[in-house]
Amino acid sequence: MAKVAVLGHGVVGSGVVEVLMKNTGNITQKAGESIEVKYILDIREFNDLSYKDKFTKDFSVILHDPEISVVAEVMGGLSPSFEYVRACLEAGKSVVTSNKELVAAKGALLLNIAREHNVNFFFEASVGGGIPIIRPLHQCLAANKINEIAGILNGTTNFILTKMIHEQMDFSEALALAQKLGYAERNPAADVEGYDTCRKICILASLAYGKHIYPDSVYTEGITKITLADVQYADNWGGVIKLIGRAKHLEDGRCLIMVSPALIARTSQLAGIEDVFNGILVRGDATGDVVFYGRGAGKLPTASAVVADIIDAVKAAGTHKSLYWVDDGKNWAINYKESETAFYLRLTGKPAAELKELAQAQFGEIEVLTQKEQPADEFACVTQSINEGRMDELVSGLTAAGACVASKIRVLEY
Amino acid sequence: MAKVAVLGHGVVGSGVVEVLMKNTGNITQKAGESIEVKYILDIREFNDLSYKDKFTKDFSVILHDPEISVVAEVMGGLSPSFEYVRACLEAGKSVVTSNKELVAAKGALLLNIAREHNVNFFFEASVGGGIPIIRPLHQCLAANKINEIAGILNGTTNFILTKMIHEQMDFSEALALAQKLGYAERNPAADVEGYDTCRKICILASLAYGKHIYPDSVYTEGITKITLADVQYADNWGGVIKLIGRAKHLEDGRCLIMVSPALIARTSQLAGIEDVFNGILVRGDATGDVVFYGRGAGKLPTASAVVADIIDAVKAAGTHKSLYWVDDGKNWAINYKESETAFYLRLTGKPAAELKELAQAQFGEIEVLTQKEQPADEFACVTQSINEGRMDELVSGLTAAGACVASKIRVLEY
Repeated sequence: MAKVAVLGHGVVGSGVVEVLMKNTGNITQKAGESIEVKYILDIREFNDLSYKDKFTKDFSVILHDPEISVVAEVMGGLSPSFEYVRACLEAGKSVVTSNKELVAAKGALLLNIAREHNVNFFFEASVGGGIPIIRPLHQCLAANKINEIAGILNGTTNFILTKMIHEQMDFSEALALAQKLGYAERNPAADVEGYDTCRKICILASLAYGKHIYPDSVYTEGITKITLADVQYADNWGGVIKLIGRAKHLEDGRCLIMVSPALIARTSQLAGIEDVFNGILVRGDATGDVVFYGRGAGKLPTASAVVADIIDAVKAAGTHKSLYWVDDGKNWAINYKESETAFYLRLTGKPAAELKELAQAQFGEIEVLTQKEQPADEFACVTQSINEGRMDELVSGLTAAGACVASKIRVLEY
Repeated sequence: MAKVAVLGHGVVGSGVVEVLMKNTGNITQKAGESIEVKYILDIREFNDLSYKDKFTKDFSVILHDPEISVVAEVMGGLSPSFEYVRACLEAGKSVVTSNKELVAAKGALLLNIAREHNVNFFFEASVGGGIPIIRPLHQCLAANKINEIAGILNGTTNFILTKMIHEQMDFSEALALAQKLGYAERNPAADVEGYDTCRKICILASLAYGKHIYPDSVYTEGITKITLADVQYADNWGGVIKLIGRAKHLEDGRCLIMVSPALIARTSQLAGIEDVFNGILVRGDATGDVVFYGRGAGKLPTASAVVADIIDAVKAAGTHKSLYWVDDGKNWAINYKESETAFYLRLTGKPAAELKELAQAQFGEIEVLTQKEQPADEFACVTQSINEGRMDELVSGLTAAGACVASKIRVLEY
């Protein structure tokens, strides 16, 4: 019998305990031995629970119990999670976590400590909730070069955008609904500003390319400026606006990595991913495009991913898996201004005909977009592919000529 | 260095050799050692190839070479594949295969032989080509009870249906195009009659439920009778017709497993899977719905799945993985007539109004469908959910009353 500890009894932690207790037969068969939760670390009291005697408030009890071979960290945040996880790995215990902030900030360091101590550090639940993505990316696509990864990685923002697209709610209305339904925090910045998506694409990129890519090196733009007008023009163009985290391997070994809203065509496999669902597209040189889709968050989906990692850690006892990346001190992410893409632009402040002339003067050939309730002083278009740095100059030119650039959203092909 | 043999140098086999030679750095890193193709078995001559000296026509050379630790069987068919695979496993060599016919017919037996000899038998490429599905289903979803699996598992039929839906080709036109493009064989029965889909859903169901389910116990209906009229009515209903292989775990431990065309709503994640792509929906009790999407066939996608298995087999040398199911002599698949579903019906042979009355008399509440070029003597509807056996009686009733049941297609919710 393997004995495990669960650090944190919040939404995910209580789900982990529930799944471990519910599917025992299945889990024992898959792990090759039964798995028992010996401790649950939480500072709160849970006296109504049938398993209340498993709770402890003292981390050192867990750390110093040699019976504990696997620890599940599901507290979130960086401190004390980082110190706890590090101590467990150094004590020869494998650790599994759902904590994307931790993996994005400290992944290379913790993977190295795990390797040195011949234990494992797994984090399937840190990206995509219940969608298997870390392991398939690492293992099943081992025979591929991963050219590109692009994903809808945050359920809250996808829910908000879906409501804007299908029910013509504006951003603040849709956000309020998401908060009411418990999908968004009272302080929604981590979601709507794209930070959560950024952590997740950093984890996927680090795994795919073998170098730790830190969130603070990644250009990150959220969805707070998206308007209903943008959604309508996107519809006229033949697509939808989604918050996309993406990473592309460049020929010189560096990586273009970015988080931003984007227009994607309705025919894209990512366009149909709605509500709180997540979808991740992996573009391999041999497999072509593979897409993984499912619930990216929630108690049981995330818990089941944590439990799958626990099972794997139990099975792998005494061996170290090759899941790994390094921090070699270099910044592998290019400055996004070096990259190029097509842009959707919404201009205001002058009669539409004048705005069109200005846009044509700046960008040459453009695709003009319309929408039903288009104001007389608004003009929208999609440009050709253009360098990001050059785009900034051209936008300055537009502004100097008296146009207001109300929206500027990238157009991506996936 | 690990030395492997490839049995068969057809489309997939040559792809396996290509991927192994191309991505050596990546593969060595993932496998922990380099992998060299020592032999390729084929009865044909390949004198133009740079690696022509690796070919042999004598299987016993491979079988008796103790250096060969992993054999990739990519010949297809049952004989001599089965005898070769069995001999390799009994000789202590791990085997990986893309051969769905072999796995569907002999999976339990070969998995048992592999276990007895402490080697591995992997078959990621047998379902979904380059889409990782076997391993995620087994491993990442270990913490779930798999309630249901439903998939578009055959690219050829999906291509044909896509052409019928979007370009109003009829079945024979679309089939001819598929043959011209090399997607369909000259004898297309294995694809269009659903046999290929049947083998694949049997493999997935056997893995998910732990009992070998044989193709000949599975009701299998192909797409040859689907007409453009059906496609139009489905469109009016709000969906598309897809060939679906599905398996559902019943409470008594048995399994409802079936292959048939089905109407699915346009909002379903399976509805957007077009052309030669495959998509597999896995419904777990904790994860909810997870969908895997990608190229289900083709040289490099399939080869990359075979190579991923080779890497795994090399890494797992000396250990046996728990991927497993048994043939316990029982038939775990229920008679599909015990199940129930809603049906789409297209009736002809009488004026539409009379057909409607007849349908209402037989089925009670129905949803009436229309299409633009609807003949005066045609009527289409969707029934309530109804037992399959009872449906047959009601259809007999319609026929006895002078109606012709031109189409009868299941309506599924995924």
